[in-house]
Order: sequence, then structure tokens, then C-alpha cells
Amino acid sequence: MKLDDLIVGPSPWLQPGGPQCDIILSTRVRLARNVAGRPFSSRLKPDQREELDAWLQKAILKALAPKDVAWFELEGMPEIDRRCLVERHLISRELAAGDGHRGVAIDPTQRLAIMANEEDHIRLQIYSPGLQLDETWRDADEVDDRIEQQVTYTFSPTLGYLTACPTNVGTGMRASVMLHLPGLVLTKQIEKVFRAVSRMRLAVRGLYGEGTQATGDIYQISNQASLGRSESDILKTLGAVIPQILAYERQARDVLATESPKYLDDRIFRAWGLLTHARTISSEETLTLLSAARLGVNMARLKGVDIGAINELFLLTRPGHIQKMRGAELSETERDVARADYIRKRLGAT
Amino acid sequence: MKLDDLIVGPSPWLQPGGPQCDIILSTRVRLARNVAGRPFSSRLKPDQREELDAWLQKAILKALAPKDVAWFELEGMPEIDRRCLVERHLISRELAAGDGHRGVAIDPTQRLAIMANEEDHIRLQIYSPGLQLDETWRDADEVDDRIEQQVTYTFSPTLGYLTACPTNVGTGMRASVMLHLPGLVLTKQIEKVFRAVSRMRLAVRGLYGEGTQATGDIYQISNQASLGRSESDILKTLGAVIPQILAYERQARDVLATESPKYLDDRIFRAWGLLTHARTISSEETLTLLSAARLGVNMARLKGVDIGAINELFLLTRPGHIQKMRGAELSETERDVARADYIRKRLGAT
Repeated sequence: MKLDDLIVGPSPWLQPGGPQCDIILSTRVRLARNVAGRPFSSRLKPDQREELDAWLQKAILKALAPKDVAWFELEGMPEIDRRCLVERHLISRELAAGDGHRGVAIDPTQRLAIMANEEDHIRLQIYSPGLQLDETWRDADEVDDRIEQQVTYTFSPTLGYLTACPTNVGTGMRASVMLHLPGLVLTKQIEKVFRAVSRMRLAVRGLYGEGTQATGDIYQISNQASLGRSESDILKTLGAVIPQILAYERQARDVLATESPKYLDDRIFRAWGLLTHARTISSEETLTLLSAARLGVNMARLKGVDIGAINELFLLTRPGHIQKMRGAELSETERDVARADYIRKRLGAT
Repeated sequence: MKLDDLIVGPSPWLQPGGPQCDIILSTRVRLARNVAGRPFSSRLKPDQREELDAWLQKAILKALAPKDVAWFELEGMPEIDRRCLVERHLISRELAAGDGHRGVAIDPTQRLAIMANEEDHIRLQIYSPGLQLDETWRDADEVDDRIEQQVTYTFSPTLGYLTACPTNVGTGMRASVMLHLPGLVLTKQIEKVFRAVSRMRLAVRGLYGEGTQATGDIYQISNQASLGRSESDILKTLGAVIPQILAYERQARDVLATESPKYLDDRIFRAWGLLTHARTISSEETLTLLSAARLGVNMARLKGVDIGAINELFLLTRPGHIQKMRGAELSETERDVARADYIRKRLGAT
């Protein structure tokens, strides 16, 4: 499996058809693990880091047959490729920007990614389309078990898994759900909902995780603490809150359709008009317009439009992907033109 | 001729095909005249005003056969009809908003309109499509002569025609040209050009005359003073300046096409995308978008679009016309929806 193939392939967190996929893009479970008897990654000397990276690569490829995962070394990888992996949510911004030997194992479907030498020695994540908390956890747990047959984890009988950052101690798990909430944004209820969410020890983040703004009305909701709670407790909390948010979003959409149909359609169709006509468009405006178009398709107001194309564009219009597809480094101005061209082409506009 | 037919018919100042019509919408000549031996309109008592109005109607209809013009009395005319006449440039905002007996004679092609009891007893105007200064003046002069066979004007051998406002004394003529100058606006040269224009005793106004903003990049350039100059002097000054502005605008369009083709096309095609997709749109945004679309068609970048439809929409999307076509009084919100619907329909969008 080559990186170039992986970077143009589909992404499971944008695949339509999952449960509640009109609102929930994807479910992710991430586990943080460290190898017993070794300093945390940030305290490794360069040669120790290199040795651990190689050792983890071997262990992971042994745990998961090479046909199931491919290894990509980050050290020396072109910036554009690292950027694309971040845009695909396959590695963290920290791993991309980091120094020294570090890598990632990715399966061909891109559901599974295991980072080595990030903040923790091992960061394992699984994505599923739509809302699939239990299934995703079960799959992550299984991969974790297979790795554990090769690696002894640092584990405290009282605290649980030990991690570089105290917020991850315990289960080492973060379960998160990526939601598209344009209804709550348009009806100005989003802040209220999120205040309620944070009272339940859940965190709200933007499309690209911690510290990123919610763009395209996409939000990630995840557990904040990992200590003193079992995996199933964490999943239960999320599993109880998400259906409520789903209900609020559906209600907001109903209110818009009933009380302000013209305002709603205006947003949807203007977005569609701009996506299919603009000759230069920024990354941020693209997400805003895609969000409105996605809402239009999911509310059956914008017809004859392939939701798969809209979903895909959320990813393929990111700066890294635009350049990767063009096979050239582009200035921001050039990217904006290439992005507009690509969008029109993908949406069948002339 | 009924007012309702007149209000939905075509308008000569928007008719394509005139000389330089890619930039010059129309040429107008207006003459201010007063009847000898009577106080100016503002000093007439109500009964004197009524009597003069009736007298002028008779004189004008005698001068110009009834088949050539129809008379419309403003006193008692519904507000919506008065508004439409203003939007068509057939009467002034002052006549529409005024009090007491006052009227207007309009010919079936709407080139000619003669207001009675406006600021002056008689305000005669002729519109021609495109740039036609001499032809328009000749036609106005001919109509003026015919009226003078029925009416004795107040005239001073030293000053010329006497008018209610000193700025009109002399020829009583205002010659003006309506220009579409998006190139100079986009390249930010419009202010510079207008500073040069004002040094030549010419005035620059917006689409709806004195005190209105230039909307849709449409400007009217006219002579400022009327005293101490002959009609032909005034026409000569305008006739010398307009070709220079035409050249500047053409140059600006060339610069845009050569140096910023993507920026230019983005403006043009976004405008087209919004015009054909919006579900609610304000009067002001409409003019901005129509201006960009008009530029696109005239520069042959936006193809397969009827320039006649674009021109027509400059007028038919005004608040009065939108309501007149719907046959109902509409709130601003309702107008914005009706406007968007009408534009999509007129442009053949679904």
C-alpha cells in the first residue's frame, strides 16, 4: 500500500450510510498506551526514540498481519504528505509537526491508524461511519488485545493505563463522535447545547480537534476524563447524550423548515449556487457552503445531488489534498483557484 | 393607454442596441419651462394649481396629438403607481411625493415624459438608448417647439428661460448620460475619474438622481450649470468627456481581463450563481449582482445569457415593480422573496 493511493482514497469518517449519518459523520475510539520499562516519548533520547520506533513498527506489524496494515515513517516524509494525513484524521497535528523518529500504521480502509512515538508510545484509533459507539469500541479493544500479545503496557492496578498526560490516565480511552449541526447553529442554540454537554464531563471540539474552530458546523464531542471510570461508563455517558443532541438538531431543522423555509432554502441554494459557480474560493468558505449544501441534501430540499460527493469535498478541498491532487506546491491564491475548479468539476458544474 | 400597461412595458433607457450600449445605458435631455404671467408652481394657491394643471394638460395634448401621449394625473394616484413611474424615470421623486394637482404626459414608447407642476410648470424629458446626445437634443427641441405653439414661456432676453431654481436658468436644459462603470469601480479608479469630471462643471449622480447612491455601478453624468452657455456648448462639453470615460472603462476592463481574470470571473460567475439560486434577495444586492452579470455578458465571459433580460431586471426588480407585478402590497421580507423568485424565472433558472 502506497501513501499516494491512501491519500486519494475514501475516508471512513465521511462515508455515507452509517447509522444517523444525516447528522453523525463518524464515531472514533482512541486508546493511549505506553510500553513498560521505557521513558515516555518526550523523554527519549534520539537514539532511544529511533530504536523504540523500529521496535514498535515490528511489534505492530507482527500483531496485525502486514496485509492488514502498512507502516509509514514520519521522519523525512514530505510536509505535503504529513498534511494530507492530518487532514484525513489519520495522524495528529502533533505527530505531523513533531521531531525525530515516529510513525503510523494504517489499514487499507483507513478505519484503523496506530501512531508510534506521539505523546504516548502508542496511540491507536478506529473510525466508523455514523453513530457506532459499541461496535467501534469492540474493534479497538480487539486490536488493542492483539498488540498487547506483543507489547507489555505500563499499567497500574489502581490507576489503570499510565500515560504521558494525566488526563489520559485510567482507560487511556477517548471516545468521540463527529456531528454536523447546522440546524443548531442557524437557530442559535448551539452554545446552549454545548453548555449542557460540558456539565456532563464531555468536551466539544472543532473539525480538527483541540483548539481548532468548528468549521462547516462540524463538532466533535468526546469524554473529557479517562480516570476512575470504566470504558463502558464512558461509552454510556456519550451514548446517552448523543441521542439528545440528535433530537435537538432534528427539532431545529423542523423549526427552520416550518418557520423560516425561505431563509433556510436561501442559505442552501445560495451555497449551491456559489459552489457550482465560484472561480476562486477559500478553504473556510468552502466548509461553510458545503455545510449548507449537506443540510439541503439531508433535508431533501436540494435534490439530485450526491451526498457522497458533498461529504468527500469536506476532505478533498483541504489545502493539503488540493495540492496533492494537483501534484504541485501552490500558493494560497493558486489553491483557491484550484479548489474552485475541483469543486465545480466534482459537482458536475460547467 | 393605461398606466398598468405602461408600467410593465419596456423602458427606453434599458433597451440594448444603442450606440456604446455595453457601457452607456441611455442619454437624456430635460428642459425646464414656465408659463408666462403665472407664479412658479410652489407659489400657486391650490385652486390656481388645479387650474394650471388642467390648462397644461389641454395645451400639451393639443401640442402633441392624443395618440402620441397619454395624460396621468398624480393627485389621487395610488402610491405604488407613483413609485413605479419614479423607478422608470418617467417622473421625479419630487413629483411623486408632492401635493396638489400635478400630472405627467407620457408617450407609448416611454421616451418622452412631460411633467406639469413639478418644481417648474413644465419639465420635458426625452430618453434615448445608448449614447445619442445630438439626436436626443434634437427630439427634445422639436417637442419643445410644438408646446411653445400653445404656451408662452417666461423668457428673458438676457438670462434665457426663467426657472424656479437659479441653477436651471438659461437654457433650462440638463443633458445627462447614464453609464455602467463596473470596470472603474473594480479597479478603484472611479473616484479619480469623477474628480476630473467635476472640474469640467459636470455633475455625477447615482441611478436615481440627486442624492441617491450609485447602485449597480450605474452613474449619471450631466451638466451642472445652465446659465451663460448655449445648448450646443453644454452638449459639446458632455460629448467630449463621455468618450474619455468610455475609454477609461474599456481600459479598466482590459486590465481586469489580463491581470486578474480569475478575480474577474469569480465576481461574474458568483453573481450569476446567486441570481439563479437565491430564494430571498434585497433590492441593493440585486443591483450589485446584476452589474457583475452585465459586465460578464458584455465582456463575453458569461455566455448564453440574454443582455436584454439582465437590463430589464435592473428595473423590474425595484420594490414598486415587484409589487405591481404581484398585484399586491408586500412587506420588505415578502418583496425579497418575490424578487428572488422573479429573477430566477426571468433568467430561466429552476
